Amino acid sequence: MPDPRPVPPGGAVGILGGGQLGRMLAAAASELGLKTHVFCPDHDAPAFDVATARTVAGYDDEKALAAFARSVDVVTFEFENVPARAGEVLAANVPVYPNPQALAVAQDRLAEKTLIQELGIPVPPFAAVNEARDIYSGLGRAGRPAVLKTRRLGYDGKGQAAIRTGDDPSHAWRLIGEQPAILESFVDFRCELSVLVARDRQGATLTYDVAQNRHERHVLAETTVPAAIDAATDEAARQIGVRIAEALDYVGVLAVELFLVDRPEGPVLLVNEIAPRVHNSFHWTQDAALTSQFEQHVRAVCGWPLGDPCRHSDVVMTNLLGESAARWQVLAGEPRTRLHLYGKREARPGRKMGHVNRLAGPSASAGKG
Amino acid sequence: MPDPRPVPPGGAVGILGGGQLGRMLAAAASELGLKTHVFCPDHDAPAFDVATARTVAGYDDEKALAAFARSVDVVTFEFENVPARAGEVLAANVPVYPNPQALAVAQDRLAEKTLIQELGIPVPPFAAVNEARDIYSGLGRAGRPAVLKTRRLGYDGKGQAAIRTGDDPSHAWRLIGEQPAILESFVDFRCELSVLVARDRQGATLTYDVAQNRHERHVLAETTVPAAIDAATDEAARQIGVRIAEALDYVGVLAVELFLVDRPEGPVLLVNEIAPRVHNSFHWTQDAALTSQFEQHVRAVCGWPLGDPCRHSDVVMTNLLGESAARWQVLAGEPRTRLHLYGKREARPGRKMGHVNRLAGPSASAGKG
Repeated sequence: MPDPRPVPPGGAVGILGGGQLGRMLAAAASELGLKTHVFCPDHDAPAFDVATARTVAGYDDEKALAAFARSVDVVTFEFENVPARAGEVLAANVPVYPNPQALAVAQDRLAEKTLIQELGIPVPPFAAVNEARDIYSGLGRAGRPAVLKTRRLGYDGKGQAAIRTGDDPSHAWRLIGEQPAILESFVDFRCELSVLVARDRQGATLTYDVAQNRHERHVLAETTVPAAIDAATDEAARQIGVRIAEALDYVGVLAVELFLVDRPEGPVLLVNEIAPRVHNSFHWTQDAALTSQFEQHVRAVCGWPLGDPCRHSDVVMTNLLGESAARWQVLAGEPRTRLHLYGKREARPGRKMGHVNRLAGPSASAGKG
Repeated sequence: MPDPRPVPPGGAVGILGGGQLGRMLAAAASELGLKTHVFCPDHDAPAFDVATARTVAGYDDEKALAAFARSVDVVTFEFENVPARAGEVLAANVPVYPNPQALAVAQDRLAEKTLIQELGIPVPPFAAVNEARDIYSGLGRAGRPAVLKTRRLGYDGKGQAAIRTGDDPSHAWRLIGEQPAILESFVDFRCELSVLVARDRQGATLTYDVAQNRHERHVLAETTVPAAIDAATDEAARQIGVRIAEALDYVGVLAVELFLVDRPEGPVLLVNEIAPRVHNSFHWTQDAALTSQFEQHVRAVCGWPLGDPCRHSDVVMTNLLGESAARWQVLAGEPRTRLHLYGKREARPGRKMGHVNRLAGPSASAGKG
């Protein structure tokens, strides 16, 4: 498909995937006068609550994908693990952003790490693992502890196994299902950061303020902005984001997760992974920035000018996992706290049910009780 | 219906009316994990784009109203001119906020002015007009210029006729359709203000910062916050809002439009009219306050705690009327500007197509291009 004209107000954005990211993308699109069409296999997907049109079908249902594509002016994604064939079917019928090649890179940890390394951007030492014996040679180079990760379909710590001193590498190999993998050195980092870059169809880019993240059991627990980093590190993180987005000819918002590592020669940023979509560590932009990441993504994929990413308040974002969302009435009453819930019926342990953004710093003016 | 328990996340809010106010209410409800059901006679109502469920039916369709009411946990309104019978049918099936009696008062300019006067709150001199000769006696007391307004169903200058020196009062009477009316003195005001009060089911109230409004041809053109008023006027405006909300046993957000008049004894606030709903002059709360008026209304009618109304930035809201929304690409690219479009197909002259909130003042931190 040739690069099309901007999607005008009243046009329709197709969103593949119906989770909370799709829900917040759809709500943001509505603020710009756009309609939405959400495609998801789950009949009670959170994004359906706020979508103009819905398709319940599998990502391998080519007929449904084609009909979905023809019903909208542009298609985007709330997740990166879109089957390649689905991307092809969509792209044959409608403009698709980000481009499916960018998704393909992000779907494969080996392709991703290789690309980033080729750009001259540091990554943790890694080795490709196609069979069990590759783990041993990899450990010889990378040392222990290390972590074995499936090349595909891993997220939030799934598809990963640590290999520490004394661990049997073949046990890790069985744990991840004996599938193509990547062995990465453990990184002794000072902190985890992420950067979000937005890139429009003409190639203009901008970045949001760098976020500092704290994970618990491989799941993001809390994001703090501004991050406790110096100006040089801040600038370096932003530049890494921009260079990766440009290398992928990316359109939309792209998150890059980073480790800040102290080396004798000074602090170094290593790329952990990229996410070609809106990202949990930038949910704070909903309440502390002029343009949320959700609206920014919609603007970019629709061919609109990028929105102002300025931040007006310091902020801490906390995920509400599992039963912690049961405290919604307490959270809803906290001052300077913005509560976001995803409308999910079942609060399974560790499931992302919502988040809160707590704003710090004085406001320009207070309402009165 | 007895005062019910709060509507929990995952519950459904019914919204009567499908215009831009309903659209923004529905989007705000989705952020709290709530579903929405919009009832509107127009099949292409803007609010349908973002509603979980839709009913296309007339406000006199009692069967459809009852089914709608039974499908949700609470019903609210995006407009005040709900037929009394519709309110009764809804209230027989589900909790309804604000209470239909508050709507009834706001539907009738005479009842509204009378109530406010009985509270000891100043209003412009007025007289009831049931037949043409009442206009002459009214003019005798109020003087000219004056304005004749239908008691019911007037908004944005519709159903009004001015009577200036030399004008034939019977012409004004014919212009408004010879129906029950109210004659009001022209008010020579310094400025037009509005205040928004939120009141929850337990009777707790809070107010947003007072807005200063500029109308063009009876339609709101621009709102500036903060208003150019002193602290005493600010406090007086807020108190007027709270007293009216309490008198109506109101639940939700309620807007009060005020004239600031300079008198020899000092500045005086006169109530122009009330709107028992979210109001155009508080659209700035979407981008410059912690809790938007839309979320605040949803919280109140659902029995949630009220949200923090603090304002973090100075702001000017400008309505996009008719063809002025055709500049959306330019507006979308302005720094520190938040664009909101309603997804309406046809840009009829004077039709509200969207609005922009322009934020002033330095931000805590700037994103980088």
